[in-house]
Amino acid sequence: MSTLSLKDIFSTLAQRGRSLVDHERYSGNPQENLIRLCTDLLSVAGEASGVALAEQVLSVYHSLDRDQQSRFFLYLMEQGGPDYHALSSSISAYRQSGSQEDAIAVNRTSEPRRRELLRRVNLASGGTAALVRMRVDLMGQMAHDERLRIVDNDFQHMFTSWFNRGFLVSERIDWNTSAAVLEKIIRYEAVHEIQDWADLRRRIDPPDRRCYAFFHPALVDEPLIFVEVALTRSKISGIASVLSEKRHPIAASEANTAVFYSISNCQYGLKGISFGHFLIKQVVEDLKRSLPGLKTFITLSPAPKFMDWLRTASDEDLAIDSDAERDWFKETIRTGNWVDNVLEQKRLQKLLLPLAAQYFLLEKRRHKPLDPVARFHLGNGASLERINWMADVSENGLRQSAGIMVNYRYTLREIEKNHERYVNQHEIVASSQVSRLLKKR
Amino acid sequence: MSTLSLKDIFSTLAQRGRSLVDHERYSGNPQENLIRLCTDLLSVAGEASGVALAEQVLSVYHSLDRDQQSRFFLYLMEQGGPDYHALSSSISAYRQSGSQEDAIAVNRTSEPRRRELLRRVNLASGGTAALVRMRVDLMGQMAHDERLRIVDNDFQHMFTSWFNRGFLVSERIDWNTSAAVLEKIIRYEAVHEIQDWADLRRRIDPPDRRCYAFFHPALVDEPLIFVEVALTRSKISGIASVLSEKRHPIAASEANTAVFYSISNCQYGLKGISFGHFLIKQVVEDLKRSLPGLKTFITLSPAPKFMDWLRTASDEDLAIDSDAERDWFKETIRTGNWVDNVLEQKRLQKLLLPLAAQYFLLEKRRHKPLDPVARFHLGNGASLERINWMADVSENGLRQSAGIMVNYRYTLREIEKNHERYVNQHEIVASSQVSRLLKKR
Amino acid sequence: MSTLSLKDIFSTLAQRGRSLVDHERYSGNPQENLIRLCTDLLSVAGEASGVALAEQVLSVYHSLDRDQQSRFFLYLMEQGGPDYHALSSSISAYRQSGSQEDAIAVNRTSEPRRRELLRRVNLASGGTAALVRMRVDLMGQMAHDERLRIVDNDFQHMFTSWFNRGFLVSERIDWNTSAAVLEKIIRYEAVHEIQDWADLRRRIDPPDRRCYAFFHPALVDEPLIFVEVALTRSKISGIASVLSEKRHPIAASEANTAVFYSISNCQYGLKGISFGHFLIKQVVEDLKRSLPGLKTFITLSPAPKFMDWLRTASDEDLAIDSDAERDWFKETIRTGNWVDNVLEQKRLQKLLLPLAAQYFLLEKRRHKPLDPVARFHLGNGASLERINWMADVSENGLRQSAGIMVNYRYTLREIEKNHERYVNQHEIVASSQVSRLLKKR
Amino acid sequence: MSTLSLKDIFSTLAQRGRSLVDHERYSGNPQENLIRLCTDLLSVAGEASGVALAEQVLSVYHSLDRDQQSRFFLYLMEQGGPDYHALSSSISAYRQSGSQEDAIAVNRTSEPRRRELLRRVNLASGGTAALVRMRVDLMGQMAHDERLRIVDNDFQHMFTSWFNRGFLVSERIDWNTSAAVLEKIIRYEAVHEIQDWADLRRRIDPPDRRCYAFFHPALVDEPLIFVEVALTRSKISGIASVLSEKRHPIAASEANTAVFYSISNCQYGLKGISFGHFLIKQVVEDLKRSLPGLKTFITLSPAPKFMDWLRTASDEDLAIDSDAERDWFKETIRTGNWVDNVLEQKRLQKLLLPLAAQYFLLEKRRHKPLDPVARFHLGNGASLERINWMADVSENGLRQSAGIMVNYRYTLREIEKNHERYVNQHEIVASSQVSRLLKKR
Repeated sequence: MSTLSLKDIFSTLAQRGRSLVDHERYSGNPQENLIRLCTDLLSVAGEASGVALAEQVLSVYHSLDRDQQSRFFLYLMEQGGPDYHALSSSISAYRQSGSQEDAIAVNRTSEPRRRELLRRVNLASGGTAALVRMRVDLMGQMAHDERLRIVDNDFQHMFTSWFNRGFLVSERIDWNTSAAVLEKIIRYEAVHEIQDWADLRRRIDPPDRRCYAFFHPALVDEPLIFVEVALTRSKISGIASVLSEKRHPIAASEANTAVFYSISNCQYGLKGISFGHFLIKQVVEDLKRSLPGLKTFITLSPAPKFMDWLRTASDEDLAIDSDAERDWFKETIRTGNWVDNVLEQKRLQKLLLPLAAQYFLLEKRRHKPLDPVARFHLGNGASLERINWMADVSENGLRQSAGIMVNYRYTLREIEKNHERYVNQHEIVASSQVSRLLKKR
Repeated sequence: MSTLSLKDIFSTLAQRGRSLVDHERYSGNPQENLIRLCTDLLSVAGEASGVALAEQVLSVYHSLDRDQQSRFFLYLMEQGGPDYHALSSSISAYRQSGSQEDAIAVNRTSEPRRRELLRRVNLASGGTAALVRMRVDLMGQMAHDERLRIVDNDFQHMFTSWFNRGFLVSERIDWNTSAAVLEKIIRYEAVHEIQDWADLRRRIDPPDRRCYAFFHPALVDEPLIFVEVALTRSKISGIASVLSEKRHPIAASEANTAVFYSISNCQYGLKGISFGHFLIKQVVEDLKRSLPGLKTFITLSPAPKFMDWLRTASDEDLAIDSDAERDWFKETIRTGNWVDNVLEQKRLQKLLLPLAAQYFLLEKRRHKPLDPVARFHLGNGASLERINWMADVSENGLRQSAGIMVNYRYTLREIEKNHERYVNQHEIVASSQVSRLLKKR
Repeated sequence: MSTLSLKDIFSTLAQRGRSLVDHERYSGNPQENLIRLCTDLLSVAGEASGVALAEQVLSVYHSLDRDQQSRFFLYLMEQGGPDYHALSSSISAYRQSGSQEDAIAVNRTSEPRRRELLRRVNLASGGTAALVRMRVDLMGQMAHDERLRIVDNDFQHMFTSWFNRGFLVSERIDWNTSAAVLEKIIRYEAVHEIQDWADLRRRIDPPDRRCYAFFHPALVDEPLIFVEVALTRSKISGIASVLSEKRHPIAASEANTAVFYSISNCQYGLKGISFGHFLIKQVVEDLKRSLPGLKTFITLSPAPKFMDWLRTASDEDLAIDSDAERDWFKETIRTGNWVDNVLEQKRLQKLLLPLAAQYFLLEKRRHKPLDPVARFHLGNGASLERINWMADVSENGLRQSAGIMVNYRYTLREIEKNHERYVNQHEIVASSQVSRLLKKR
Repeated sequence: MSTLSLKDIFSTLAQRGRSLVDHERYSGNPQENLIRLCTDLLSVAGEASGVALAEQVLSVYHSLDRDQQSRFFLYLMEQGGPDYHALSSSISAYRQSGSQEDAIAVNRTSEPRRRELLRRVNLASGGTAALVRMRVDLMGQMAHDERLRIVDNDFQHMFTSWFNRGFLVSERIDWNTSAAVLEKIIRYEAVHEIQDWADLRRRIDPPDRRCYAFFHPALVDEPLIFVEVALTRSKISGIASVLSEKRHPIAASEANTAVFYSISNCQYGLKGISFGHFLIKQVVEDLKRSLPGLKTFITLSPAPKFMDWLRTASDEDLAIDSDAERDWFKETIRTGNWVDNVLEQKRLQKLLLPLAAQYFLLEKRRHKPLDPVARFHLGNGASLERINWMADVSENGLRQSAGIMVNYRYTLREIEKNHERYVNQHEIVASSQVSRLLKKR
């Protein structure tokens, strides 16, 4: 259905014995009806009628087309701010008294009414999931209209509270997990695409593979984030051996290393609410407890912006001594023809690894590395362990990262120290192996 | 342990590889250390070290004695308000621009820093449960020091968000439920005490008994609220027949009436966060679906303040015609000797039931009935179905309610209409049977 | 591994502290070692060493190649019979006394020692599953060597006891079922092949589809048998509409008919142990209880031997009046070219449906219908409801059944009566619609 | 109900559409009707009507009083034997041919028809549980009439097959277990009575306590056997410290010893079907895996027949040198007045412990110790580790065991060796500490 008429609204309300609202007010087009429903929802006292209206709000919202959504969000932006009149009064009172009570009254009156609206809509059955989907629409509109960010901030504010770590449940994903959840793992894998159910099985079923996800009670069967782990007898320097169809699994108890080779956020509507740090930490702790043989916890991570930087860096930035060499380098990188040529590989490797070290350790914006994956893991307290040459020679791997992959290392005893150094001193903790690369530039 | 020394704090932090905090600062007595930990927790950026500090905060808090707790709460009260300096600046900016952005900045700066502290403490493992217990301590202190209410408001504000209906999971409680949960049902039953496990079993195991509870994922094995239901072939007018050891259960499919005879909130630390409305509504809907033979949904409720009112009401309030009769009434009520005397029962009943109707329908404060249970059910949209004479002649029932009990009726199709009339027109929807009692006064 | 050496056996036994067995005796080739292990297993008293030996038996068996298996089964056949000496003595004693005690002693001594061997092997961890797989091997060998049937009889005897209905657990299979079970549903579907996970989902996830399976506690994640059900608003006359990718599901509560369109046995090793009757009956009862709107329970079944009969029937058997018509019929059936020709369809239908009725109702061997699916459902107490023309025009459907499919009807109140008539009077209960077809021959 | 009339039987059968049986035959008293139902059940072909009749059999059986039961069991004893006619024929055939096929035919015809009856009754819903209860009745009758043992043998034969180890599921029992199961743990504890729910909790909830049970899928919520375990830092020499209300639990990871202090069979109807060996072995393996710190697995067991032996032993048996000392010993034991007298304790201990060693190691019947608990654990492959003086001074402990308790030790690597020595060489493996006691006699 593209619109929900007055009649629709009231037949629904009537079916459920809800004749409380004033019929005359719901005669407009859908987004006008929706706006009136929102106004009513904000004005009712008590939960009994609130829930009914909240469900109506979601039902009418569901019927909007893109344009109508846009007008609804604009309304939220323009009219969903604080009650300015009350705000002024409370500010006056506060300026006069300076009391904490009056400051808190200012806090109350300055809250955008959108937030209370979100709170009330959230009481509808399935409300949380519906609001997460609504934010996806909103972010789509925001791409065209930056003013909507003020609305999005309120969604993010509420979600941060609702999806706090205390309410997340971590669960192991394996071949005994329900198909309803597994199909979402296939769909949401964002780093190394899962081809089909057989590919999925290779990642979660063998004794030396693990997968963990966070769930929230209000989003049934919907993982929020998940991580895929390979248990191995050594650090792994390339993704192909992890995903190979032909490898021989080992017993989990024989492994000494856990390789986190893929972390995927599942809910675009929860963008900006971070779960990754908690999930990694919990998985490290769980694995350590159940498999005491595990000594090393590292990632095998892409460097998604490395090629962007190489392409746009100035000649001075690219610390290559000889002009000729630099020109060869730029041309080789550009064409990407080096992969099948062993000689060129060697030549390129010598130039590229030091540049990668430079990219991770020295190139920063606002004191932080350019690479988003580096920012995530270093911000979590990991250290930069190793840069792996020709570690992902898939088309995507070459295009984004010139084939390199990075090991970030999680050492439980050092996570917080590393984190502090990263945040406060803007230091990146790196292994000597990586640091030495810098000198080779 | 009564205190946690500097050494304790740091041996714990050191064991976990956490040497980030400045040792020198933790040399005071416990509540001073706690205050410093709270300051540190508010100042760290990022989750990695936050969680460690949050766990430290809870651990040190746990070691405080009553006095130290009191000083800690006073500190939260005095120092946990907004950042006044930032607030002033943002108010100035807002007064100049009048923009929504600046209003929202006022909202941000006017937030008491206590709330952010609660958010961060909540990230500790077991944080939510610990904060719920902390609020119990706080409310204890508040009884002596009303100034702490401003702190309690922030606990309530956060809990309202965290314990919103979308995150509650309802579960049936029966003889297959774990002992860990059942012992809490025994402990938390607040209306009709559960004597022992055999008594519990009589309430949850027979085919014509139901019990449902709400749980929250952050409080494992801890019911938040539960309701006990008797399925019967008729309305029930007294509690004794419900709780009798000797009754013969019927098949659930034979019942036409569900009697909600006990609703208990379990978590004192969640006082003011209402779950009852949602639980009743969901149970009514679930029962209706699984047992289509059920037509009537009523409570069998106490009237806990009825005797208070009778005792304190003026002679004019007690609408009894003859002075002699009123004197006899007052004396009889006072001594409570009427229960075993059939003649006096009859005489009392004639006087008391109309007064009960008056108590429920006419006696109000701020437009609402004096009786808290009446306020709860009528506010949920129930109607006042019947006042039952000699329905609870237990010692407690006589002392609080002069032995009467009340049926409130939940009719799904009328819940919202009733609710609106109650909230907006201050009307109490009552059956004609009850209304007629009024005329007998 | 193809063989397990003496050394292998004893290193395993030694690792587990099991040095009880006489080393010298285990020096042969695998099947000789296995035979000695079996002898030892039969001779040990008590469970403690029995379990260790049983696990050894399974481990050595697992290492045998086909030839060695064959020799092992021949050994079981020749040497696994009763203890003839003891049998003779007990027979003599019984003939003398004629007592029940002595008759039971005959029973004990006449039992093939194979059965006790199976009982003891079954005590190994995973023993039941291993024995079910062993019987698959045995049945493979039996195809070449009919003498082995005497061994197979003992497997079947034990399995009938172990897999009796009381130990089966029925479970609903849906999209929340684990992938470990679902992949077996895909693999074991024997009637209408499941193409892939998407096809599977169409059969178990929509609101008007059901799937139920029986499990046994000793075979984890292994369904024994499952049935697929379509809930519809009418009887269904063809399989295409059931399996269509494009159909619109209805709400389960709207359905009045449950169509059992596929029943698959999963464990070839349990051949001859019947579960189907119990599963159908239980599913009918469960569906009736949870969906009171369901009034009709029918199958949509293939007729897998119909074309065989048509091809081999003599001219007299084919009750077609005109010789020309019969010749046309035989030729048309043989070539199968009629499917796309509407005129020929009509002509064929008139001849073929009466012959189908004849095939089901009159053509019998040992008083039972030729068709195995008919024998199954009629033996369960179903009645023959309808023969559907052009109901399965898949290649397989045309080749086996000339495109017809059959509805058998399960009416709970008549199941036992029908069953008795079928078994005792050799009567086939059929609807008048089917019976009338007979007259058209 | 005490009887089930003809009318009752047929109204039930009719309600379910079962009119197959011949009404005229069911006109007798209950046990005659039951006998006819059994005859019919044995004669029907196929499962469809069998299940209905089986349920009728159980329903009518349920209505019998003791006398009627007795007559029913006598009928089973007299008429439930083999088909003697068929047996004679098959014996003749076998004597002529001597073939394995004919031997197996003898096996078939010599089977008591009771067994087939039990198989068919077992198909009824709840049949297994009903048969287990029926055997309880049977064993009650058997106490008065030894002839019924022949019937009981068939129950035991079937149960041994149905309750074989492969079908048992072991589960941990703790405070998260359902009340439905826990109440049975309370009821079935046979060694050290569980006083109430608080006592139960002390045994299953603390971190250093474990309880495991075996379940069978056909007996829902009914444990078959369970074992209670205390995890400690040392061997335990008395029961009081295990069951104390005031002890301080330790962390499970700190324990080095698991003490099995109580093993209880739950189902009297499964008497003679042994589960204990498997349960202990599995619990030892599970504990070893999850708590690698556990090095010692011992029991703390009663010696229930020790006092019996002391009382009935001849003077020569009681290896006490001095006649005076022996007389004092016998008198002291008889009166039991020594417990509160430290001097007498010492004197008694010196005499009694060597006699206990004699009782366990030397006093045998049919090569096995007199003590049933000793027979159980030694037969499982345990060794006799220690005899504890004044280990159970409860009234019961003094009356049965003169206060001693015994540690049997389970060492996984030696279980089978010990078992073989016990079974084949009739040797009891004992620690040197116990053996030395013998010399002190």
